[in-house]
Amino acid sequence: MMHLKTVDHLKVWPSMKASELVDEMGKSGVMGAGRIAKAAEIYSKMLQDKDCKIFFGQAGAMVPGGMKEIIIDMIRNHYIDVFVTTGATLTHDLVEALGYRHYKGSDKADDAKLHEEKFDRMYDSYMPNDVYEGMEDFIEKNFVSLADKETIKDFVWEIGKLLPKDGKDSILRAAYEEKIPIFCPAISDSGIGLMVWGRIASGKKIKTNAFEDLKEILDIAWTTKKAGVFYLGGGVPKNFIQQAMQFAPETASYGIQVTMDRPEPGGSSGAELKEGISWGKLNPKADYTDVICDSTIALPLIYAAVKDKKILRK
Amino acid sequence: MMHLKTVDHLKVWPSMKASELVDEMGKSGVMGAGRIAKAAEIYSKMLQDKDCKIFFGQAGAMVPGGMKEIIIDMIRNHYIDVFVTTGATLTHDLVEALGYRHYKGSDKADDAKLHEEKFDRMYDSYMPNDVYEGMEDFIEKNFVSLADKETIKDFVWEIGKLLPKDGKDSILRAAYEEKIPIFCPAISDSGIGLMVWGRIASGKKIKTNAFEDLKEILDIAWTTKKAGVFYLGGGVPKNFIQQAMQFAPETASYGIQVTMDRPEPGGSSGAELKEGISWGKLNPKADYTDVICDSTIALPLIYAAVKDKKILRK
Amino acid sequence: MMHLKTVDHLKVWPSMKASELVDEMGKSGVMGAGRIAKAAEIYSKMLQDKDCKIFFGQAGAMVPGGMKEIIIDMIRNHYIDVFVTTGATLTHDLVEALGYRHYKGSDKADDAKLHEEKFDRMYDSYMPNDVYEGMEDFIEKNFVSLADKETIKDFVWEIGKLLPKDGKDSILRAAYEEKIPIFCPAISDSGIGLMVWGRIASGKKIKTNAFEDLKEILDIAWTTKKAGVFYLGGGVPKNFIQQAMQFAPETASYGIQVTMDRPEPGGSSGAELKEGISWGKLNPKADYTDVICDSTIALPLIYAAVKDKKILRK
Amino acid sequence: MMHLKTVDHLKVWPSMKASELVDEMGKSGVMGAGRIAKAAEIYSKMLQDKDCKIFFGQAGAMVPGGMKEIIIDMIRNHYIDVFVTTGATLTHDLVEALGYRHYKGSDKADDAKLHEEKFDRMYDSYMPNDVYEGMEDFIEKNFVSLADKETIKDFVWEIGKLLPKDGKDSILRAAYEEKIPIFCPAISDSGIGLMVWGRIASGKKIKTNAFEDLKEILDIAWTTKKAGVFYLGGGVPKNFIQQAMQFAPETASYGIQVTMDRPEPGGSSGAELKEGISWGKLNPKADYTDVICDSTIALPLIYAAVKDKKILRK
Repeated sequence: MMHLKTVDHLKVWPSMKASELVDEMGKSGVMGAGRIAKAAEIYSKMLQDKDCKIFFGQAGAMVPGGMKEIIIDMIRNHYIDVFVTTGATLTHDLVEALGYRHYKGSDKADDAKLHEEKFDRMYDSYMPNDVYEGMEDFIEKNFVSLADKETIKDFVWEIGKLLPKDGKDSILRAAYEEKIPIFCPAISDSGIGLMVWGRIASGKKIKTNAFEDLKEILDIAWTTKKAGVFYLGGGVPKNFIQQAMQFAPETASYGIQVTMDRPEPGGSSGAELKEGISWGKLNPKADYTDVICDSTIALPLIYAAVKDKKILRK
Repeated sequence: MMHLKTVDHLKVWPSMKASELVDEMGKSGVMGAGRIAKAAEIYSKMLQDKDCKIFFGQAGAMVPGGMKEIIIDMIRNHYIDVFVTTGATLTHDLVEALGYRHYKGSDKADDAKLHEEKFDRMYDSYMPNDVYEGMEDFIEKNFVSLADKETIKDFVWEIGKLLPKDGKDSILRAAYEEKIPIFCPAISDSGIGLMVWGRIASGKKIKTNAFEDLKEILDIAWTTKKAGVFYLGGGVPKNFIQQAMQFAPETASYGIQVTMDRPEPGGSSGAELKEGISWGKLNPKADYTDVICDSTIALPLIYAAVKDKKILRK
Repeated sequence: MMHLKTVDHLKVWPSMKASELVDEMGKSGVMGAGRIAKAAEIYSKMLQDKDCKIFFGQAGAMVPGGMKEIIIDMIRNHYIDVFVTTGATLTHDLVEALGYRHYKGSDKADDAKLHEEKFDRMYDSYMPNDVYEGMEDFIEKNFVSLADKETIKDFVWEIGKLLPKDGKDSILRAAYEEKIPIFCPAISDSGIGLMVWGRIASGKKIKTNAFEDLKEILDIAWTTKKAGVFYLGGGVPKNFIQQAMQFAPETASYGIQVTMDRPEPGGSSGAELKEGISWGKLNPKADYTDVICDSTIALPLIYAAVKDKKILRK
Repeated sequence: MMHLKTVDHLKVWPSMKASELVDEMGKSGVMGAGRIAKAAEIYSKMLQDKDCKIFFGQAGAMVPGGMKEIIIDMIRNHYIDVFVTTGATLTHDLVEALGYRHYKGSDKADDAKLHEEKFDRMYDSYMPNDVYEGMEDFIEKNFVSLADKETIKDFVWEIGKLLPKDGKDSILRAAYEEKIPIFCPAISDSGIGLMVWGRIASGKKIKTNAFEDLKEILDIAWTTKKAGVFYLGGGVPKNFIQQAMQFAPETASYGIQVTMDRPEPGGSSGAELKEGISWGKLNPKADYTDVICDSTIALPLIYAAVKDKKILRK
């Protein structure tokens, strides 16, 4: 007979710690709960592995979804080494750094009315449309130094550099200060992109090259002893890291993916991490797990469990 | 301009309590995290509302998924008043009460090999096939008293009564002792059903009526001042409670649904709670939320938050 | 190198037949399209296999979803041999047989307003609430003969028998006339169940037994040379057939499942067919496919392809 | 009482046309089938509206999924006016244009073995890894003319221009010949991107600017009388078009979205089209529908229905 571990039923008690809850999920060890616990365990291993560079890919509305402080904490503690994200995330972070906020709304809203009231909806989170004015001022005022950057990464860091110092709860600012590279291949697909367009449409020039970032992310992959990947959502951020993993000496040795998309239609966003083994993106001996869960639920839970281990990495 | 609350970014710190994590999710208040927090808040309100009877519907492999102790805790503390479930859940609980266990496996298993090794797979949890022998002995030995029960609820309670007293971590036993009714309309669709078939196929008789339970659940609905519904998964358990809510004086005043199924194909399992308003199953003024999440993640998180409030209900 | 077939790109042309479209999907042979084509191929094989009994399990709102005529056609042509369904499907079929209709609505409806207007919503299909009056009259008038039935199957056939002969586009009537057994383990969980409750609550008796049907479905499974399963949605209908397959001499030799539910949370509704091999429900050599698709899209497409083959089975 | 249309049950007959099947789906008019029919109707309206420019956004593995010929047919007939896609789609198309093929595989494959056999898996479709050699030769040989292009669109068209003329079943070639612009903001995130990196890593230069394309797509949006959007999958292609719609005089007047992603986690890929109304991306009076379906099933069905109308647009 096969040698198997029992599913131990998880227990819940008053005043239990979030990390204890995740430990209990590990005792059951199956289905979604088991994967949350495994993700926390794998993330801890990555953090404790000094040879491992952690590539964090994030898509989806994490700033409008209230996850900004966790991402900043990951950056400040060097719990990630490379950050790949969407233009939308950087735009949402920038507008909050400029003093705007997102608001609690409803997914059942009357969108025509919201449009009149000048709120842009992301499911049940609203962004006031006047953020575009603040962004335009910011980009216009700083266009000379921004337009001089040849890579998207440097363009993004420059935004972080230009932000007021007291804007410390900004992903852009934190990444700039901590020298964590942010890659954003589709930067033109964002509010920030539109602000740049506003300048170049009137004849100004910007030097930013569409391919130049590849040198830097592939160099990081190439020169790391080991690599770990952590994906919230799919899209370009996941795929851009996956592509880089083909150049890491051992491909990815650790992998965590949190997604609600499905694998069956064949797209990268819903693809199981395991598929990456065929490509040479994931090591056949890697520790990895696919967590099928809303990132706004999974990330805080995994992060609270890991945070409790007080791993120093900086 | 509309009056809206800001999305406050949730914070995570070492040694934070699970309930504090859920509170933080409430501060963001949007997307999945917001709904977990809202579900915890609504469940707390139900528990504190002495006029409210709580109808708990559960489908899916919660015992193989490690959730048994939480469900028992809910029963022991009268955190639910009515339990509607599948024959599978009762079967899984019975086999554990008889001393068998579920095992941690893999969703990538070779099923033909598992079949040879006599393990039955439920995603990544395995049940040893020899549970059927233990169940057969139990049902055979006790068939006279079981066959005498005219309602499925009484049949199920009788199983709980017949279980050894030290089998205290059993849903069936706990519900029997606490006098929490268990309804299971499709009891014949289960291992327990098969064991009954083994007896009646050889000519024995069983009195259990297919419709008789309706009198009891509709009486409970009819006579409660207020009602709250809590669904993990859909299927018959959800629908049977939804049907009863049409007879509650105020229909359901509180509602929580945790599901990964989708609403668009039109089935009851994925239907939004809101749809119940049209049917007179949910009060238009009800407090309710739909949590799109794996139950093995959402239940422990919601329950840990509620448990910390130490609400007495028994 | 492995020997593999190329993915041939599917072509579309004016006046192409639906069956040709499905053939083209088979030429690509991958992802959702490939599975639709494979499902059509497997269903054709089942139909042409004279030794094979076809067990059709259906959950979800197929009558409100416009699929009734296809299901009736399947019954009239003996394209299924056993039908397992929900109480809701039988209720929706009964109310249409009594002259009511379902209506095209909106999933964004104001449910409180619908409640006032007396429409019950199933996603974007509405049922007028006054169907309950017609059903009550029907069940009240016929209660004596219905209450005399000892199995749910006989109770359901009796409804079919009692329906007016010109109500020929009724699933219930067609199954009765064609002697296709309908199993509905959770019949009490439905509008029909409520109508029975209305009678027994006032003291009338009904003989229908909760377990008795098991003898008949397991006998059918036991005595068939081969078995094929075809599932639209999960829930009790799928599980009840899966359970019977353990008693078929070769378990299921053909399998088609159409679902939008996911496997990861561990429930039966979303479980891959392959899992059934471990249980002895599916033959390791079976021809099978899991189609991840809304049944209202997949069924017409698969059925149009099969219909074109004009296979005689009656 | 509200005035509503009945759900008419769809019929299926031998030799029925694919377009007739879609018409039947429209008679039911609800759930997934209703939306397929509505999508076909909306697409026909777009095609017949001479004032309307059609923006087609496509993410996911459509070339490995056998959808290439349909997309080429859309381009050749000017059934789309603007194409926004991923680097992966262009890479898959390029490698097929260079003579490679995709292969029918299995989603249950042993990925480590596939890696040894040098096949890269996309769910159940395989790409031979040696495509990278052919691509490298092609890009190396043509780098001078490619590197000279200042926009990603021109870079992509140049690839199409450089392809052999007999490579007529290529998306890249067809778009170049028909002068349908292809936008691909994240071109660096692809096999094509890697080939460019291979050149620039050794010191060569490429002029392609990260932002420059915005001028062209926003100009097209700005100057069209009306706009229609058609999305297969989400990601950057959808979002980049959505962003452009804010500049169209009437925003989008027609909208079709086919996706399997979910709206609840808040990301753009799963967001309902309706949300775009709040942003000024979709006209409140637009004709639109969200089809929750695998693109490899929905696209052929919708396209076969539309194809039968023989609308001339070129």
